[in-house]
Amino acid sequence: MPQINKGMGAMTLTHNDFAVQTLGECTVPSPLNLSTVYGDYLTNYIDENERILYSNRLSAIKQYIENGEEPLSFEKAGPREKIFFEPGAVRAGIVTCGGLCPGINDVIRSLVMQLHFLYKAQSIYGFRYGYWGMIKESGLQPIVLSPDKVSDIHELGGSILGSSRGNQNVAKMVDRLMDYKINMLFCVGGDGTLRGASEITDEVNRRGLPISIIGIPKTIDNDIPFIDKTFGFETACTHAVASIRSAHVEAKGYQNCIGLVKLMGRNSGYISASASIASQEVNFCLIPEVPFELEGPNGFYSHLLKRLKRKSHALIVVAEGVGAYLCAKDEYDASGNRKFGDVGIFLRDGIKKFFDEQGMHVNVKYIDPSYMIRSSRPIPSDSRYCIQLAQNAVHAAMSGKTGMIVGRWNNSFTYVPMKMVTRENKVIDPESTFWLNVLEATGQPKSMRNTKP
Amino acid sequence: MPQINKGMGAMTLTHNDFAVQTLGECTVPSPLNLSTVYGDYLTNYIDENERILYSNRLSAIKQYIENGEEPLSFEKAGPREKIFFEPGAVRAGIVTCGGLCPGINDVIRSLVMQLHFLYKAQSIYGFRYGYWGMIKESGLQPIVLSPDKVSDIHELGGSILGSSRGNQNVAKMVDRLMDYKINMLFCVGGDGTLRGASEITDEVNRRGLPISIIGIPKTIDNDIPFIDKTFGFETACTHAVASIRSAHVEAKGYQNCIGLVKLMGRNSGYISASASIASQEVNFCLIPEVPFELEGPNGFYSHLLKRLKRKSHALIVVAEGVGAYLCAKDEYDASGNRKFGDVGIFLRDGIKKFFDEQGMHVNVKYIDPSYMIRSSRPIPSDSRYCIQLAQNAVHAAMSGKTGMIVGRWNNSFTYVPMKMVTRENKVIDPESTFWLNVLEATGQPKSMRNTKP
Amino acid sequence: MPQINKGMGAMTLTHNDFAVQTLGECTVPSPLNLSTVYGDYLTNYIDENERILYSNRLSAIKQYIENGEEPLSFEKAGPREKIFFEPGAVRAGIVTCGGLCPGINDVIRSLVMQLHFLYKAQSIYGFRYGYWGMIKESGLQPIVLSPDKVSDIHELGGSILGSSRGNQNVAKMVDRLMDYKINMLFCVGGDGTLRGASEITDEVNRRGLPISIIGIPKTIDNDIPFIDKTFGFETACTHAVASIRSAHVEAKGYQNCIGLVKLMGRNSGYISASASIASQEVNFCLIPEVPFELEGPNGFYSHLLKRLKRKSHALIVVAEGVGAYLCAKDEYDASGNRKFGDVGIFLRDGIKKFFDEQGMHVNVKYIDPSYMIRSSRPIPSDSRYCIQLAQNAVHAAMSGKTGMIVGRWNNSFTYVPMKMVTRENKVIDPESTFWLNVLEATGQPKSMRNTKP
Amino acid sequence: MPQINKGMGAMTLTHNDFAVQTLGECTVPSPLNLSTVYGDYLTNYIDENERILYSNRLSAIKQYIENGEEPLSFEKAGPREKIFFEPGAVRAGIVTCGGLCPGINDVIRSLVMQLHFLYKAQSIYGFRYGYWGMIKESGLQPIVLSPDKVSDIHELGGSILGSSRGNQNVAKMVDRLMDYKINMLFCVGGDGTLRGASEITDEVNRRGLPISIIGIPKTIDNDIPFIDKTFGFETACTHAVASIRSAHVEAKGYQNCIGLVKLMGRNSGYISASASIASQEVNFCLIPEVPFELEGPNGFYSHLLKRLKRKSHALIVVAEGVGAYLCAKDEYDASGNRKFGDVGIFLRDGIKKFFDEQGMHVNVKYIDPSYMIRSSRPIPSDSRYCIQLAQNAVHAAMSGKTGMIVGRWNNSFTYVPMKMVTRENKVIDPESTFWLNVLEATGQPKSMRNTKP
Repeated sequence: MPQINKGMGAMTLTHNDFAVQTLGECTVPSPLNLSTVYGDYLTNYIDENERILYSNRLSAIKQYIENGEEPLSFEKAGPREKIFFEPGAVRAGIVTCGGLCPGINDVIRSLVMQLHFLYKAQSIYGFRYGYWGMIKESGLQPIVLSPDKVSDIHELGGSILGSSRGNQNVAKMVDRLMDYKINMLFCVGGDGTLRGASEITDEVNRRGLPISIIGIPKTIDNDIPFIDKTFGFETACTHAVASIRSAHVEAKGYQNCIGLVKLMGRNSGYISASASIASQEVNFCLIPEVPFELEGPNGFYSHLLKRLKRKSHALIVVAEGVGAYLCAKDEYDASGNRKFGDVGIFLRDGIKKFFDEQGMHVNVKYIDPSYMIRSSRPIPSDSRYCIQLAQNAVHAAMSGKTGMIVGRWNNSFTYVPMKMVTRENKVIDPESTFWLNVLEATGQPKSMRNTKP
Repeated sequence: MPQINKGMGAMTLTHNDFAVQTLGECTVPSPLNLSTVYGDYLTNYIDENERILYSNRLSAIKQYIENGEEPLSFEKAGPREKIFFEPGAVRAGIVTCGGLCPGINDVIRSLVMQLHFLYKAQSIYGFRYGYWGMIKESGLQPIVLSPDKVSDIHELGGSILGSSRGNQNVAKMVDRLMDYKINMLFCVGGDGTLRGASEITDEVNRRGLPISIIGIPKTIDNDIPFIDKTFGFETACTHAVASIRSAHVEAKGYQNCIGLVKLMGRNSGYISASASIASQEVNFCLIPEVPFELEGPNGFYSHLLKRLKRKSHALIVVAEGVGAYLCAKDEYDASGNRKFGDVGIFLRDGIKKFFDEQGMHVNVKYIDPSYMIRSSRPIPSDSRYCIQLAQNAVHAAMSGKTGMIVGRWNNSFTYVPMKMVTRENKVIDPESTFWLNVLEATGQPKSMRNTKP
Repeated sequence: MPQINKGMGAMTLTHNDFAVQTLGECTVPSPLNLSTVYGDYLTNYIDENERILYSNRLSAIKQYIENGEEPLSFEKAGPREKIFFEPGAVRAGIVTCGGLCPGINDVIRSLVMQLHFLYKAQSIYGFRYGYWGMIKESGLQPIVLSPDKVSDIHELGGSILGSSRGNQNVAKMVDRLMDYKINMLFCVGGDGTLRGASEITDEVNRRGLPISIIGIPKTIDNDIPFIDKTFGFETACTHAVASIRSAHVEAKGYQNCIGLVKLMGRNSGYISASASIASQEVNFCLIPEVPFELEGPNGFYSHLLKRLKRKSHALIVVAEGVGAYLCAKDEYDASGNRKFGDVGIFLRDGIKKFFDEQGMHVNVKYIDPSYMIRSSRPIPSDSRYCIQLAQNAVHAAMSGKTGMIVGRWNNSFTYVPMKMVTRENKVIDPESTFWLNVLEATGQPKSMRNTKP
Repeated sequence: MPQINKGMGAMTLTHNDFAVQTLGECTVPSPLNLSTVYGDYLTNYIDENERILYSNRLSAIKQYIENGEEPLSFEKAGPREKIFFEPGAVRAGIVTCGGLCPGINDVIRSLVMQLHFLYKAQSIYGFRYGYWGMIKESGLQPIVLSPDKVSDIHELGGSILGSSRGNQNVAKMVDRLMDYKINMLFCVGGDGTLRGASEITDEVNRRGLPISIIGIPKTIDNDIPFIDKTFGFETACTHAVASIRSAHVEAKGYQNCIGLVKLMGRNSGYISASASIASQEVNFCLIPEVPFELEGPNGFYSHLLKRLKRKSHALIVVAEGVGAYLCAKDEYDASGNRKFGDVGIFLRDGIKKFFDEQGMHVNVKYIDPSYMIRSSRPIPSDSRYCIQLAQNAVHAAMSGKTGMIVGRWNNSFTYVPMKMVTRENKVIDPESTFWLNVLEATGQPKSMRNTKP
């Protein structure tokens, strides 16, 4: 049974959880030469103490006040007047890990530009093929990154550095950082990658090295907590809507025809839900957060049958993570998670079988656009977001922050401890107005279960 | 990105400013049949008293606490358990005014679907060609809108209802509402339109009519205050980036060539600034909020010359509102605002003249993509936003709210009194990190004035 | 690109094969009121006797001359000065059959506009869901088509009439035409559909009815002979290239990674070959016309291994029809054709197995974009082509032509007897320069067989 | 008065006009190792004597036969079994001139790939900024082009080499070729460029140098004779249709609103006409080949008025070359051609004035998308075409052909003497069925002149 995102609320968060580690005192004057006063039309440094509220609900704030507590809050991102590293001494590393996601090259480009032009970094290395390229045994040499080298890469999908899945020996990776005298490492990746980055930070701390480890969260699924939205997500929704439109055209093209689209989302249905609202054509949006049954009088198949009898076509979107409930396997991956089958194929076959049993011939047109989405170039709003994340990541590193990721929360850029975002996944709350908007847009039943929960 | 204009900060806002008017007590049970408890996996009604904080800064909240005041907040949007109108008695009107903007048809479609399917409205009228179609003298009959009529309109740019500029006689418009026995009117438009809607509300109040007037703010410029972002804005930025890319290709295609793109934004430079970050190629982004000089050693032309000597090409984005400073006319419009010339043409000619005087031949490739942007179809993230705005607008009207607009603030949908959003325009704060991100992305000087301000 | 299948060359074509049937003498003056002289700047009627050469090779023409024969030629399409039907008496039917293809709605729209505005047709019926909607038993009523009804349909993918596969009882379909007093029927479909249309023509002839049956050939695969290119083909290539680009990005994103794209083409590899040239990234393009082996020293797997060792990534395009050789089944369809499996899945699994045996770990990213391609809207060059086909189809019907299709040959629109285009499929000649261009663009071996043929 | 394209027909063409110059006897065996027999499934060399008919009309061929003449024909493009240059000795140059056009980078990339991989060229130079970069005085060094350097350039619009307008001293350019020991030069450009290339050929001939000069015709206007279509043209039409759609949306958005789009085409209206058919929305398509009057009872304004009264909106497309008639200036350019004003602005103002005089308020929404079109990336069908042109250009150069361009004629690639294509422009014949298709699609009057011609 999928869990409502109460974990977030239920977790007892403390002020300590929001505290970002620093490598030491900031004594170097920033080369940015910004203003420190308001009213001169010149951009200002961000004060170390500016903070962004965790909750934007009045009732939550009232409760803090009643309890005499300071509300929980994030450190605000941005350039500091005093920084930790001498600009000319900066030797940066960049590594991109996990699945492809629109915008990685924009992040790389912007990190390089910001490091080179704003902070005059001495050298910037790009490790090849994820953490694998960070250990000597891979035989891979990092690429030296310069503005010339990266100036056109935002025109290309993917990652010019390449990627790989899985972690590597942490000690070996830190050895490698020392080999190249790297004093700031930017890790672009999802929760596995950030867990790895967190371990690298721990090892760096153990060795007492002045190396800043900064994460830039990347997950096309948008399931990282304490961050509004991950880069690439809106691009994914954009292409998802195109796939849904295709399935809709197919479904309307024939009598008793069903369009079925499987979208990314192992733990959370953000892409499916967002694309279902945007497409305006979807009749059923199935996500892991909202439990449902296939069979029975109030089950999904029964509602699908009614729809088809009424309109002669139907359009279904399913998030891949629904497979964890519908087609779990008796196998477990290296991390001990139960594996599950391809829920798109499962549903396609299940629907056909159900209608066969009803003696009704239906056509199911099944579309799985995953690779085409992952490899696309970011839409401009994602590009902008990537660039702003990278700009703030560099500001963070220059200020000696470490073991943290750059995020955005209620429209403000923030610095968030890595450990906080790798605890669990962000999921859609089925009792929220966001999910209501999906129900309103699809017209699907509020519940497709035969018994009340 | 949502920056509060300094004026906004300066305005003394009171709790009263945030209070939304209602037509009367809500006694009708909602037909939506949502849940009222948490934990049953069923979507909940939004409590009338749920509110979203105006400020997300910890320091602001601390100050409220010190002063013993309740922080300012917005009413949270969403469906209420008890509503004002009997569903079957609803007779709605929709009107779209002002310039075209991507997403208008999505708003119309979603209003119709929500009214028809969720709240079983009796009839829905679409007035033709803006407020002009709302007075009898126009000779225009409203269109009867049904799900069938609107089911494919999200595939089309523009407004199927048509639009017009300017207000009409308020009494006549209210007469017309009475003629058609309309009890809720949805006005899609910018600040002029919302000012008109506000006057309609006043007239309706004067006459003591139970008619709900709901605004859905539309301005491609994103310059409406107390709302994160207006619909169509991200679509505009998307196409703006494409135009900038074109100018960049042209500029790089020849020796000493300058690409110049004029973008929309009469009062604020949001499109120009956002597109400049996203495109990653812009060298100079000129917006009305950031004063600069053309001539002199630290003036724009001088920096442009340096850029061209160094790189042999340059890329400039200018917001149309810069014309108010550079090429104001001695003419005033009906509302008493000073008119100004086309800043794109002005700069194109000015640059040529400047370089001629320097004895340097340059090519200026000038692009003005305005009409192509306005008339485009919304990108999916804007579609989704349009739909959510419309869904919440209908919830508001059903609950008897009036004289208000539907907005979004720090990721939560809100209800905001119309009078609040028509006071003044939202602008970019040049001292904010958002503008810093533009400076970082363009590499342009922090100030292009010859004297300190 | 239009290659004549060797079969075609082998077929003994006679002048008779090129002769289009007519319903009778044309005595009605065309309402188009075109010019009949050259030099007055006014468009001219096309003379009944204008003909377009079948061969564009000088050597072929020389041979005809030597043999004292008139070269084979097609009737040129276009408006005639005298027509067969009284404009006001025209009652037209339109039916769309088979798989979806970009441009069907453009064809429908243009048929309606041309019939209505140019020739003042009395009524136009659109049959629902293919030939199935043409028999009474379907219970489906045809839609009355008017300019208003179709004015926006070119913005939508698919077919507003819907489609179905397979033929229906010919007598019943002709009965239905008689029920509705239809005197011209436009059949949009592939070879099966055109075979059906040919049978309808025969039945109409048998009954001595003055009904014109005109085909508009539709096959996304571009495998219809005696026609340069079918509509929707270039749109298919456009989207195919996007899929290939995605696979390329994925392939480059990881070490030893292979991108694999399966494209449409049951009998011919036109989409695969054209998209492979256009994408410029493909390393192996596999089509049914060019036999190859998987195993052995000169087999495909061996070359793939070499490529991967050299570059660490590879990109493969395979046409679905290759499955007829690689994964034929022991099943036969209703028409007696041997069925075959999904060659994309077959190759994905085969490649993995091969590399496993080599002890080399590879990743295969497999993309099947078929439904997304079929359902897309046509690119403008296809729209234009659709419209011109439909315009000429109407001219043909008005002139009383029947049992024919509208085609294009060497840039001129032509009228071609239906029986000629349903004989066999058009395929790529592996010995042509077109296929050479594919080899040049991919760099793949000229032959991947272990023995000389 | 614009000339009908009778020049082509009227010109007395001789077999000699079609003869391509060669540098000498081909004695080097081609490294391509193709087949010379048919039936072995291996691609064949193209025989030196294969020729493609100039006319595809049966009547024209009959006339040749009657006269006992051989029909005119083009040399067929493709690889020859024996070539002129020793592969390893090839030193190639590439230059791109004139306005930007979608596909230039695809041509460059494919030339480099073909020269490097197929023919193992020794070195390839790219001259910067057109012919200007080919003379020493420019101070510009050519770029050394390798597969690595060009592998991603097809993702970018424009020309990576840059361009310039105008010719340079021919002797100096040939000196430069000699400096770099270049033995084959590929000139990508329009009629001016090809005229320059023709002069370079003459100078090379005069000096008796074994340098092959090959043109790849580039004109977005598609106005080069003896070639089906120029590369970039379909891309231009694609974007033109998008602009027209924008204007249509604007026009429909307001009462009495006119959308006006100016498209490229100085001498011929191909883009305007093709886009008008494809868009299906245009009411008036104005091109230089079809004379019309503005005033008078059968003039354009009068028809526009009727349309507006009937439908309240109208959509106009005008080719820039119409300006030569409507707004010619008393100025002449360097080549003695009369200059003319911007016809889009001229019409916009003229229309407003006309309706003002009629006492009718209209809105004119004017769009000029030229730069956005020129700088875009090619659509895949254009990419494919670019690549095939480049592949055949290299085959031509290797075979020692010179003073020729690569073309396509009735679907076959051809070699055409440069002098033939620079004689005059290709234009639309107003008496052709192509122009009829425009009239049918727009519904505009066959003639908008007050007197018969």
